Amino acid sequence: MKTLSPGATIGILGGGQLGRMLAMAASRLGFSCIILDPDENCPAGKIARAMICADYDDETALAALSAQCDVITYEFENVPAHAVAFLQAAGSALAPPPKALAISQDRLHEKNFLQDIGVSTAPYQPVNNESDLQNAIEALGLPALLKTRRLGYDGKGQALIKNKNGLAKGWKAMQGMSSILEGFIDFAFEISVITVRGKDGNSKTYHPARNLHAGGILRRSIVPSGASPEIIAEARSIAIKIADALDYVGVLGIEFFVSKDGALMVNEFAPRVHNSGHWTVEACGISQFENHIRAIAAWPLGDTARHSNCEMENLIGEDAANWPALAAEPGALLTLYGKRHQRPGRKMGHVTRLKPL
Amino acid sequence: MKTLSPGATIGILGGGQLGRMLAMAASRLGFSCIILDPDENCPAGKIARAMICADYDDETALAALSAQCDVITYEFENVPAHAVAFLQAAGSALAPPPKALAISQDRLHEKNFLQDIGVSTAPYQPVNNESDLQNAIEALGLPALLKTRRLGYDGKGQALIKNKNGLAKGWKAMQGMSSILEGFIDFAFEISVITVRGKDGNSKTYHPARNLHAGGILRRSIVPSGASPEIIAEARSIAIKIADALDYVGVLGIEFFVSKDGALMVNEFAPRVHNSGHWTVEACGISQFENHIRAIAAWPLGDTARHSNCEMENLIGEDAANWPALAAEPGALLTLYGKRHQRPGRKMGHVTRLKPL
Repeated sequence: MKTLSPGATIGILGGGQLGRMLAMAASRLGFSCIILDPDENCPAGKIARAMICADYDDETALAALSAQCDVITYEFENVPAHAVAFLQAAGSALAPPPKALAISQDRLHEKNFLQDIGVSTAPYQPVNNESDLQNAIEALGLPALLKTRRLGYDGKGQALIKNKNGLAKGWKAMQGMSSILEGFIDFAFEISVITVRGKDGNSKTYHPARNLHAGGILRRSIVPSGASPEIIAEARSIAIKIADALDYVGVLGIEFFVSKDGALMVNEFAPRVHNSGHWTVEACGISQFENHIRAIAAWPLGDTARHSNCEMENLIGEDAANWPALAAEPGALLTLYGKRHQRPGRKMGHVTRLKPL
Repeated sequence: MKTLSPGATIGILGGGQLGRMLAMAASRLGFSCIILDPDENCPAGKIARAMICADYDDETALAALSAQCDVITYEFENVPAHAVAFLQAAGSALAPPPKALAISQDRLHEKNFLQDIGVSTAPYQPVNNESDLQNAIEALGLPALLKTRRLGYDGKGQALIKNKNGLAKGWKAMQGMSSILEGFIDFAFEISVITVRGKDGNSKTYHPARNLHAGGILRRSIVPSGASPEIIAEARSIAIKIADALDYVGVLGIEFFVSKDGALMVNEFAPRVHNSGHWTVEACGISQFENHIRAIAAWPLGDTARHSNCEMENLIGEDAANWPALAAEPGALLTLYGKRHQRPGRKMGHVTRLKPL
């Protein structure tokens, strides 16, 4: 792919907050954006040069996007395979690469891929029926996490099985979908590494963030993470190993468990900008969003150093109603995503509080 | 004016780079923007929810803007008085206040206003014909600067008169327009103070920047300015005095001359976000653009502290063609305004380089 000049047009599949922040970063570098999203009121559509309101597998819409854009990217990993194939057939440059999408869409493929390249994960077993589940529990012990292979995010499509009585209920929650059972990891804490890899094969990583979840949803990311320099170096090195193995282009978010004795396991990766990297907008000169745009435009990657330490807090559901207090709080840097309706569990914005390095 | 909630709509007269960066800041807080500009390809139009392509005194366009917006602001001081009157009659909330616009549109009124409130300026005399000019030169000496009272920016509508032979040529350059002659100030350096004043009458100032011009156009802003703590404190205090006297709401950019013996004179002020405050995007948690939006939305003002020192360099005309080198320069933070055509003297973007505090 050739380097895109300012003035070029970037297509984004998905117009949520990630698409919105990608579009803002693209605008800052002089690019125009076109958003494809089924919701005409999606957050990114309001700040892009144009938006195409259609389903992701609508061929007329995909053809229009392809015709107008110099490169196409996406804000979510569940882009339908059919849409990817259609865009490729239409001759569109697509980044990150479809291979990364395909692997990350399936938890079993993702874990197999990680094991194949020598990266530790939680132990796991495929589960396609109740008897598989029984065998998997024998192998991995309890408690254990049952997850659908596909379409899970923010804790959806997951069931914690604590004891054998929970087996039938757990399997029922999967609604017959192909699943995997993951051995329960009693980790000390979780970190994530936001990684960006350029067209030239160079990679950079942001400092790992420590992530705190509630109800399966990220609540806070704290930088620095408190992990030891050895763990940080190892996590960054694993992150680059994964990006290289995927022949990746763009930002890749990788979540790690850190065990009580300091061992690292990859929980999962997302082939996109990541919620646990939102702090990079406020605490770094060049954010994950700008670096994603730089990578897919075949520009040199930007510096990932931070000018401040920080803590990022997600505003979920009714948290966003607290905006007057947050607007008045000294030092609180507020971002609201422009969503019209507040719903429980919906990410409405975030607030980042900087601290001196 | 009541506090605007996220989701409200902000109208912006003018869709250049200042309107564009205002729209980005508004989006970050969850507001929508509508741009009114005669150029359908203007930089801000591409990233706003909507744009109205019309002249600034087009009543149909102004009525449409008024009907859709909760508050209307502007990116340039030369908004026609007729447009202001029309919007006020239509019941629109307008900020900054029309009084500030009216004063800053006329160099003579501006200087009279400053003198009236006890703020030092260069000595000046109104000039309406060649004989006025002769008298003014007698009074102020030479060299001196002849400027049209209205519609000057980036050094346009100005002539430096070095000796009596330049008198006729200088007056001719004014094309018969009402003008003023300013005594030449042999200042040590120039600083500017970006000031924001809220609906509640509270004001905050950013640290002064030292500004370097070439050909009448700002080239670089450097923070800190190198001025003494006493000069900085005095400049900030004068800035707030001016904002208070204007009963101002929004960001006000104030340029000062610093004389060799440390005296301050106000050169001019702009009732809008200011080129010499672009560094606040990269070096502060809350930029001049966000603080302008906060002020006109009747939000509490944001912190004006910086996390880094910095130097901002304007990319003018063909400077922007240097983007590949700037994109590759470690630590250079690049902003391009999305202008389609590069012309000599046209501001195409800027680059900010951060330094530790």
